[in-house]
Amino acid sequence: MTDVRQTPHADSAFIRACRGQDVPHVPVWFMRQAGRSLPEYREIRGTGTILNAIAQPALATEITLQPVRRYGVDAAILYSDIMTPVHAIGFGVDIEPGVGPVVERPFGSRADLDRLRPLEPDVDTPYVIETVRNLVAELTVPLIGFAGAPFTVASYLIEGRPSRTYGRTKAMMLGEPALWHELLDRLADMAIASLLDQVANGARAIQLFDSWAGALSPDVYEDLVMPHSAKVFAGVAHTGVPRIHFGVGTGELLTLMGDAGADVVGVDWRVPLDVARTRVPGKAVQGNLDPAVCLAPWEVVAERTRDVLRRNAGRPGHIFNLGHGVLPELDPGVLKAVVDLVHEEGLRHGGAEEADG
Amino acid sequence: MTDVRQTPHADSAFIRACRGQDVPHVPVWFMRQAGRSLPEYREIRGTGTILNAIAQPALATEITLQPVRRYGVDAAILYSDIMTPVHAIGFGVDIEPGVGPVVERPFGSRADLDRLRPLEPDVDTPYVIETVRNLVAELTVPLIGFAGAPFTVASYLIEGRPSRTYGRTKAMMLGEPALWHELLDRLADMAIASLLDQVANGARAIQLFDSWAGALSPDVYEDLVMPHSAKVFAGVAHTGVPRIHFGVGTGELLTLMGDAGADVVGVDWRVPLDVARTRVPGKAVQGNLDPAVCLAPWEVVAERTRDVLRRNAGRPGHIFNLGHGVLPELDPGVLKAVVDLVHEEGLRHGGAEEADG
Repeated sequence: MTDVRQTPHADSAFIRACRGQDVPHVPVWFMRQAGRSLPEYREIRGTGTILNAIAQPALATEITLQPVRRYGVDAAILYSDIMTPVHAIGFGVDIEPGVGPVVERPFGSRADLDRLRPLEPDVDTPYVIETVRNLVAELTVPLIGFAGAPFTVASYLIEGRPSRTYGRTKAMMLGEPALWHELLDRLADMAIASLLDQVANGARAIQLFDSWAGALSPDVYEDLVMPHSAKVFAGVAHTGVPRIHFGVGTGELLTLMGDAGADVVGVDWRVPLDVARTRVPGKAVQGNLDPAVCLAPWEVVAERTRDVLRRNAGRPGHIFNLGHGVLPELDPGVLKAVVDLVHEEGLRHGGAEEADG
Repeated sequence: MTDVRQTPHADSAFIRACRGQDVPHVPVWFMRQAGRSLPEYREIRGTGTILNAIAQPALATEITLQPVRRYGVDAAILYSDIMTPVHAIGFGVDIEPGVGPVVERPFGSRADLDRLRPLEPDVDTPYVIETVRNLVAELTVPLIGFAGAPFTVASYLIEGRPSRTYGRTKAMMLGEPALWHELLDRLADMAIASLLDQVANGARAIQLFDSWAGALSPDVYEDLVMPHSAKVFAGVAHTGVPRIHFGVGTGELLTLMGDAGADVVGVDWRVPLDVARTRVPGKAVQGNLDPAVCLAPWEVVAERTRDVLRRNAGRPGHIFNLGHGVLPELDPGVLKAVVDLVHEEGLRHGGAEEADG
């Protein structure tokens, strides 16, 4: 680990980049850096679903720490799931290996609102508190807390399992807007409760995962989704921690996602980072290497990594990341090399953009 | 049926719109208008996979005609599949119900190129010829022929089944570009052979389905995919039929997809149609109602349909369509009502955009 990451977190490269401040090096972390791609994870993970593992603080702590040790990334992200709160209040959610979140009785009508009581983190997710506290005691880099955005969580509750079309979700949001808004309002409250709890216990930044918002047209997003995500960001604003807003395929939504109250906007690989910058003026950006690129030979990975750095051109307010989660089949050695490359070359790619590559 | 659709095809609303000419009404058809959403389809479809049905000209003809009769759409699209050519030459492809294309031995190395011999439509897909001829004899609207674009077909051949990440595909295109280009060149030749055959037998327009190109970043698309799609468009240019280029989630690629040689660019619902217009100046556009919207109550469907029309604002060169295929659970009555609304109001939504809604 470098000296920089041993300074207090407010002066860490990650937090400074979130705030658009100058950094000693370009900070980097990876979505799903913990988990299936790591042999040390597969060794300790045991049986049961991810929700079982999350409920064991010692295990969740170790899983969170593994990629920090291995990669020397600039931030840790809590090993948890966007479905943890709705699972914890007993909505009947599970995570099926190889499938994703499945819901025994999907949300279908007003009566189902009664199944969504408020989250009480002390009572419902004490294991999250314990894991966060463990981590804060151990980590020398900032811990990112997170929550699922109301739309993405709602889409799982309504569809009952991962969907490609979001047919039921869209039918409800457009056909029963009053019910939809009540559902999303409750999910926003749950996200706020969970995030505030994570921050109170030591998380130094938060990320709101609206992973599937890119399935929506901009006007539908603006009318029926953005107000609820904005409520979440407003609800944690007083903590002062940087707020990251993430989704996939959100090229047309980036401006709105920034305006929802984010300090940092996640950008997948579909929008070149220099183009993305023009859509979120004044915001920091996080991304944007295609995770699938990391399956190619190293020279290709290095060139694509440098391309991201060149497009940022040394500007403040860039956190290097993948555009989506690490693929399970990835060789962890590649990610380690990406971290080293970003740390070594990140700030060199300003100005003479072509000459550097 | 209206008089207009009984005029020769060159003067049909659909062909005129493809060419950016004035139209008597806004033409409309739906991707996957034939198929599972129609009770008359489920009645005659029988058992076996879609590839079995495609190989029976009488059945494929009837399935193609069903939505034309029911909806009064302005174009028919051949009932076939983008995997028909690679299946026909014996690559070992099947279409698994509820899954999609699956490949017994996926494409993984140079040796697999030998399994991709050129398509000889007379020998390999005589049933397609017969179906096209049947249709041309019966139809009073233009028939759209189609092919899978080299990238999208390659992604199925390499992944072996539908993928969310395209990890193997991207690893090959970036890691083994010489092999990738040879593969795509062969698939481009197969697409050209199939399309020329369909046009020679009476198809009046063609659509190239690069359904999953939206998974790529623009520079990867431009270097490794676009040249091969451009070859397909160039290969059919001498026929003079309008060429439509379609993909999902392609907001950042629209300009390139137009520049590849398309006369018409498909636009899904993620990009508002007025914004899409600015990305493909001089081209016609096709779209862009979210198919999932059609699961909402009629007033919502009507309002979203009018929104598409308003955004086009009466300009020539618009073919109304969904942004992707009809969902199987759709009520066909809704699509019939959309057709009627587009036909009746389509041209009224120019100029006074707000007053019309």
